[in-house]
Amino acid sequence: MIVQQRLNVPTRGRGTYDITAQVEGVVRGAGIATGLCHVFCHHTSASLMLCENADQTVRRDLEAFLGRLAPDGDPLFDHTDEGPDDMPAHVRSILTKTDLTLPVSDGHCALGTWQGLYLYEHRMRGHQRQVTVTVSGD
Amino acid sequence: MIVQQRLNVPTRGRGTYDITAQVEGVVRGAGIATGLCHVFCHHTSASLMLCENADQTVRRDLEAFLGRLAPDGDPLFDHTDEGPDDMPAHVRSILTKTDLTLPVSDGHCALGTWQGLYLYEHRMRGHQRQVTVTVSGD
Amino acid sequence: MIVQQRLNVPTRGRGTYDITAQVEGVVRGAGIATGLCHVFCHHTSASLMLCENADQTVRRDLEAFLGRLAPDGDPLFDHTDEGPDDMPAHVRSILTKTDLTLPVSDGHCALGTWQGLYLYEHRMRGHQRQVTVTVSGD
Repeated sequence: MIVQQRLNVPTRGRGTYDITAQVEGVVRGAGIATGLCHVFCHHTSASLMLCENADQTVRRDLEAFLGRLAPDGDPLFDHTDEGPDDMPAHVRSILTKTDLTLPVSDGHCALGTWQGLYLYEHRMRGHQRQVTVTVSGD
Repeated sequence: MIVQQRLNVPTRGRGTYDITAQVEGVVRGAGIATGLCHVFCHHTSASLMLCENADQTVRRDLEAFLGRLAPDGDPLFDHTDEGPDDMPAHVRSILTKTDLTLPVSDGHCALGTWQGLYLYEHRMRGHQRQVTVTVSGD
Repeated sequence: MIVQQRLNVPTRGRGTYDITAQVEGVVRGAGIATGLCHVFCHHTSASLMLCENADQTVRRDLEAFLGRLAPDGDPLFDHTDEGPDDMPAHVRSILTKTDLTLPVSDGHCALGTWQGLYLYEHRMRGHQRQVTVTVSGD
């Protein structure tokens, strides 16, 4: 059986947005006991990741790390049509995940205790981000 | 239903090769309306990514970024059997994707407007690269 | 058909652990000829990767690279509750893979000649790591 649903995730600019509950809602509604839950981000300047969800300092430190690795306004980049955060957003997306698959067990996403599912907005201004969730199994 | 097909992707050396149409061709031929399309690269010195497909400057800037992050001939590396681009190719592959899964909706790959699917050759000389596409669903 | 099994992977501290045979064992036991094998790591400080499996220097060089990119004790990080390797472990996990999907062909994992599947322990001390393998197909 396959259930597919599109989610809209509004963002308020660069940062991480917890979508665990939204995705888990699709899984519970699908009525699939054992299988897989695929999550796909339809963008090249926002992405997905599983990250520690207990201490928000982890995501602040991660942002500091990515900001040092691929800084806004880096003179290395020629693709700056949409501003100094344009190309760094593409780089950050490629270094994280465009799609993730989670195991479904006993009808829910079998995440580890400290795993949260985040959409990562890499542009400075907010966007409406589209995510497709596909649940398959028995 | 499951349809699996092997693709051969010849490369002419380091750079990105758009395989969106080839993969989409497998999806259309599979006759699956709703499901998933899995793409797998059978190598450790070439990889896959979804990247902005409108302005080729994005992929040129990305190449400049990876060349700075994991430069050829880096004295950090001992594994240089096949030349100065040997170990950097492995690093680049690990930092990008070996496999990607795309949602299939209405019989085609439901990519975002600006998303293209690329095989990234990380070695300086050309290779014959093998990619397996598996389409599943109803 | 779907077969799901949890594996326990004990680690002795930072480094890579080859789990190819364990995962291949689940695939062979599943009796699925054509399909997909999904591997999921239930942690945010250990991860998965496909890497060159012939020369162990590749994994030693990769460790050197990640150690330079996200060094233990980096003053950039505030999240240091569990020591100097705490936040670097999260960063390394995010830059590699939490989940991987492999094609199944003729009843086994269709990996490339030089591809090995590794669990990467990013913490200095050993842990019991949980991995879920889900095999689907016909």
